[in-house]
Amino acid sequence: MKAKAVFYHAGCPVCVSAEHHVAQALDETRYELEVVHLGEAKPRIAEAEAQGVKSVPALVLNGEPFHINFGADLAALK
Amino acid sequence: MKAKAVFYHAGCPVCVSAEHHVAQALDETRYELEVVHLGEAKPRIAEAEAQGVKSVPALVLNGEPFHINFGADLAALK
Repeated sequence: MKAKAVFYHAGCPVCVSAEHHVAQALDETRYELEVVHLGEAKPRIAEAEAQGVKSVPALVLNGEPFHINFGADLAALK
Repeated sequence: MKAKAVFYHAGCPVCVSAEHHVAQALDETRYELEVVHLGEAKPRIAEAEAQGVKSVPALVLNGEPFHINFGADLAALK
């Protein structure tokens, strides 16, 4: 079974770069990647927060949050 | 030809977690991963800086620096 990878972003340039370079570099035979735009899916901000996400872009792998560079605080998206 | 991925770290817990979860999740059919411990390879700190790395852990993919969470400033490793 593939592990879950969720990439949270807000469409910012830093986010686009992280998605293009890091999220897309994941091994798709081992990870099922879901890309979530928190600006367009505001109800999922609480879900991201519950997993420890503080800012975007962030990648949650196996339930662990990894902030990749810095685009925007989650608070700024609410 | 595989693209180059360099993971810079300093052995800190945040670094170990990022290596285990993110660096090891890269698609090894597309990326050749090199792991560099900057505390043990100080001459390579300048190399990391030249690629835009400011802190560890960081992953440089296709020459672009991606800081993953925050372990230590590069300056603290000199």
